Amino acid sequence: MSRGNLFIVTGPSGAGKGTVLGRLLPSMDRLRCSVSATTRQPRPGEEDGVNYYFLTKPDFEAMIQRNEFLEYAEYVGNYYGTPAAPVNECLEKGLDVILEIEVQGALIVKKKRPEARLVFIIPPSFADLELRLRSRGSESAETIQKRLAKAKEEYASAEQYDYIVVNDQVDGAADELRSIIQAARCAADRRINLLR
Amino acid sequence: MSRGNLFIVTGPSGAGKGTVLGRLLPSMDRLRCSVSATTRQPRPGEEDGVNYYFLTKPDFEAMIQRNEFLEYAEYVGNYYGTPAAPVNECLEKGLDVILEIEVQGALIVKKKRPEARLVFIIPPSFADLELRLRSRGSESAETIQKRLAKAKEEYASAEQYDYIVVNDQVDGAADELRSIIQAARCAADRRINLLR
Repeated sequence: MSRGNLFIVTGPSGAGKGTVLGRLLPSMDRLRCSVSATTRQPRPGEEDGVNYYFLTKPDFEAMIQRNEFLEYAEYVGNYYGTPAAPVNECLEKGLDVILEIEVQGALIVKKKRPEARLVFIIPPSFADLELRLRSRGSESAETIQKRLAKAKEEYASAEQYDYIVVNDQVDGAADELRSIIQAARCAADRRINLLR
Repeated sequence: MSRGNLFIVTGPSGAGKGTVLGRLLPSMDRLRCSVSATTRQPRPGEEDGVNYYFLTKPDFEAMIQRNEFLEYAEYVGNYYGTPAAPVNECLEKGLDVILEIEVQGALIVKKKRPEARLVFIIPPSFADLELRLRSRGSESAETIQKRLAKAKEEYASAEQYDYIVVNDQVDGAADELRSIIQAARCAADRRINLLR
């Protein structure tokens, strides 16, 4: 059994990463999306181990000390992170794993795991990104301007990305992501045993 | 306009390269299959520039002298080769190009064009390959044994292949090849202009 492939799916806030993954995941076998850990309170309907692993602050900090996160960050007083153990377990079973994480975390994981394929999902244009952020209706003009400025910074890290997927249509973007995963499964170094 | 990608599709005789490409080509845009040149006589129904470029021996040898082939070989008294010019013209237009060639030629092109993606199409097993060669009904037992021995040698060059596609079902193999081509189109270095 050959080890699964690791994919990091990232992109600016508002690019539609979650929507694209929601379209892709049910249509592919042997593929898992990692579950993040957080210290924030569960919202109504959120389940531990499904939406997030909900941890106490001391538990989260103990895991940081034991170096058990692929990446973590603090945001508005709460921790968010990707526990390494469940990811490794899936990979060892031969399952492919997608991490859907913020750009900063993505770049950290890419350094630790250079074999991971880093996919950057973007909206068709900056004008479109602004429109998407505004149409959420939940964020102030100032927050939106901050998010746009951050996206510009994230675009500048492009030399570290392996793939760029433009989310102009969800189906097309999901199909491109599917191709990236399927092509990785065809890589000669993973199928070399078929030649023996 | 970014330059097209070059793909080399090869594999042992009997693996079904032609069938897989026949399934794939009509379903993808911006993709061309290169036309080989040969000095053998056209068979009934074969068209110059479609099935092959039919050349005289002196013309073919003059092209060899001018280094105008990506690869060529002599086989049973006739030359076969891949002219570089039409391939380059397509790539410059931004079209992706597939070369469907024998393994020896594939390895030569991969050395000249290391950016080319080399895809090795194989049957599910050696037993299956033998069956396929036999079911053609056109070749002697001796020829079939020679082809099988050659396939074993070709399998040994595996460290030069980028992808391995198993042709157990034509649709599945064509879909894998499609994914390899689509993933190459998503490569960050080809889409970097989208981030500017």
